[in-house]
Amino acid sequence: MQKAIITLTTDFGYKDPLSGIMKGVILSINPDAGVVDITHGIGKYNVREAALTIGMSYRHFPHRTIHVVVTDPGVGSMRRPILVTTENYHFIGPDNGVFSVVYNESERCEVLHITADHYFNRTRSATFHGRDIFAPVAAWLSKGINILNFGDPIEDFVRIPFSAPSMPTKTTMEGEVIHIDHFGNAITNIGVDDLNMLLGAKPGGMIRIVVKGVQVPLKEYYSQADDKGLYALVNSMDRLELFVYRGNAAKQFEIKVGDVLGIMRVNDG
Amino acid sequence: MQKAIITLTTDFGYKDPLSGIMKGVILSINPDAGVVDITHGIGKYNVREAALTIGMSYRHFPHRTIHVVVTDPGVGSMRRPILVTTENYHFIGPDNGVFSVVYNESERCEVLHITADHYFNRTRSATFHGRDIFAPVAAWLSKGINILNFGDPIEDFVRIPFSAPSMPTKTTMEGEVIHIDHFGNAITNIGVDDLNMLLGAKPGGMIRIVVKGVQVPLKEYYSQADDKGLYALVNSMDRLELFVYRGNAAKQFEIKVGDVLGIMRVNDG
Amino acid sequence: MQKAIITLTTDFGYKDPLSGIMKGVILSINPDAGVVDITHGIGKYNVREAALTIGMSYRHFPHRTIHVVVTDPGVGSMRRPILVTTENYHFIGPDNGVFSVVYNESERCEVLHITADHYFNRTRSATFHGRDIFAPVAAWLSKGINILNFGDPIEDFVRIPFSAPSMPTKTTMEGEVIHIDHFGNAITNIGVDDLNMLLGAKPGGMIRIVVKGVQVPLKEYYSQADDKGLYALVNSMDRLELFVYRGNAAKQFEIKVGDVLGIMRVNDG
Repeated sequence: MQKAIITLTTDFGYKDPLSGIMKGVILSINPDAGVVDITHGIGKYNVREAALTIGMSYRHFPHRTIHVVVTDPGVGSMRRPILVTTENYHFIGPDNGVFSVVYNESERCEVLHITADHYFNRTRSATFHGRDIFAPVAAWLSKGINILNFGDPIEDFVRIPFSAPSMPTKTTMEGEVIHIDHFGNAITNIGVDDLNMLLGAKPGGMIRIVVKGVQVPLKEYYSQADDKGLYALVNSMDRLELFVYRGNAAKQFEIKVGDVLGIMRVNDG
Repeated sequence: MQKAIITLTTDFGYKDPLSGIMKGVILSINPDAGVVDITHGIGKYNVREAALTIGMSYRHFPHRTIHVVVTDPGVGSMRRPILVTTENYHFIGPDNGVFSVVYNESERCEVLHITADHYFNRTRSATFHGRDIFAPVAAWLSKGINILNFGDPIEDFVRIPFSAPSMPTKTTMEGEVIHIDHFGNAITNIGVDDLNMLLGAKPGGMIRIVVKGVQVPLKEYYSQADDKGLYALVNSMDRLELFVYRGNAAKQFEIKVGDVLGIMRVNDG
Repeated sequence: MQKAIITLTTDFGYKDPLSGIMKGVILSINPDAGVVDITHGIGKYNVREAALTIGMSYRHFPHRTIHVVVTDPGVGSMRRPILVTTENYHFIGPDNGVFSVVYNESERCEVLHITADHYFNRTRSATFHGRDIFAPVAAWLSKGINILNFGDPIEDFVRIPFSAPSMPTKTTMEGEVIHIDHFGNAITNIGVDDLNMLLGAKPGGMIRIVVKGVQVPLKEYYSQADDKGLYALVNSMDRLELFVYRGNAAKQFEIKVGDVLGIMRVNDG
């Protein structure tokens, strides 16, 4: 049998032992599980950022990987713990929208309300379900327990709406910045498919990108930029991204999440 | 034989390769060991914080786990390297009090002064015993070497005193903040047992919590708080904790380690 | 067969899921590989710091470990992906000098330009070769693919020059600060061999260290310092290091990378 892999994505930071404690709980139940940190640096209580982060990551792991996500301001309240099963992966976390990208991208998607508390930690708190519910359920699931043993299917799970780019006219598109990364790059909600739709079938079309009234040249990779100005490229997640070569675009140009971009189709020459 | 687990808790931070080097040393001796980070974000030289952190974490790991803790301002001096063995766990680190919580909580507790230097790294420095003593000793121990081979028992190991809450009268208790976590929550030295003792057997009692002259309502979980005020709850470690829902209590109310709390028993109604 | 170990050293930080994604890619190809973080806290785009960091770390891992280093401002451009094989280790990363310390220290050193793109990720980006080239090549290598299958040997790989200490006279040496660590210690380019050369065979010699016009006493370990002044010692990497006991030398004395030290040989008494 293939080695079970459980990943962790949380807003716990790197100062407290919370993620380490979750690993201890998992290994106490399944010592053979491989536990992999995706990140513990999600912005505090930022469910949207957690949803984008797991959305960027999950499909790069082996099939049957169990992804645990804990960004959980409602811990202890009536918000439900859920187990999500798609074609190729499992996801465990709070029902607050952290799996919204997963819902959007999956063909098959079964969501269970986790209620089988004999799989929970014996010491149960109202403030640390990562330790008391999510980690032990992930560990038991990794040992081969059938998903139906953990609870009953639900349909009314929480989805966070993510703004899609709009097309005010046939040749213009409006999008926005959805994430600032470690390097200060500004990632947008405009995907490569959106750009292709804007360009259409007409040959010779090009796009013009405008941010805060300034035109931003499109490059293929970072070091193609000639100076410390603002540039754009299609990044490794197939999204339009604003950058400064060896600089910090967000700081230098005061770009933040929610800032608007305009894209126009122009004719060549 | 069960897979050996070695955990690491240090103040090395995440910029330098020190924790990575310790993992390399361990895997060079025992390639089958599972090495788990608890945290490398302990405050620099903060032995007290390291003691609290490993105290919160160790019992969530499988029995026989080897916990290595390195917060070691006295490295290279006469302070001794020690191996602590309790009912269920091993601990390896400097004899500077980092295991004080472990000593307090364990029924059986054998402390050895590690002297068997043939188990140390061949290159021995006066500044990085994590690499040269603690990691290799943990790795050899994980391979099944008997603890008595590492050194002789000692009784005069260092204990850090942790302040306990005091009861100036039969209906009042005084405690203090002992830790500020990643979310800005202020964790106190008042445990759930202390609160139960204060409430006593008398039915209908309630407690009133006062911090900096202001009364702080007691909740069961974070999202029960109605506003951005200061609230308290009993946290997942069974300790009284001050918080602001989706906020940072320490910043907003200028709470720091050592700040005093008053608790009073009041009658219902 | 011994368990394959792959280490990661990057400037990705701990906020984004980039290092987690690399682990997913590796485990998808070789689920039995052990992936170990050295650090993801290299200064952004700081190839020199990455070179020093992997140089401090690599030899503490088991022989045949595969070290992946990604600090890669030129990603997507013509800079080559390379596979470096020495007596005991493999290294994978961009050809921008990140392996300069490895080149200097290895007796045998074969450098290949990685071109066999059937070992790359199917989705290939111009901005994240950590995911698309370095991680999959490391994973395939860890499964036993011969290095010659990945590309052809090159000789003109990039080396970063590291300044060596100079000896203006027979009794004086000049060196410089090359790294500030997490504790604020200032690590210099003066090694213990350099100091021994300066002292020479003449018995009774001592050294005097001068930084910014002030004489800095030499100690053996940190807690030997008597006060909060600036002191020096030979650190665990056999390099001269400036420190403040339980303080931050770099902050307190405004020391930065590139600052010059003077060393003199003086006669005893």
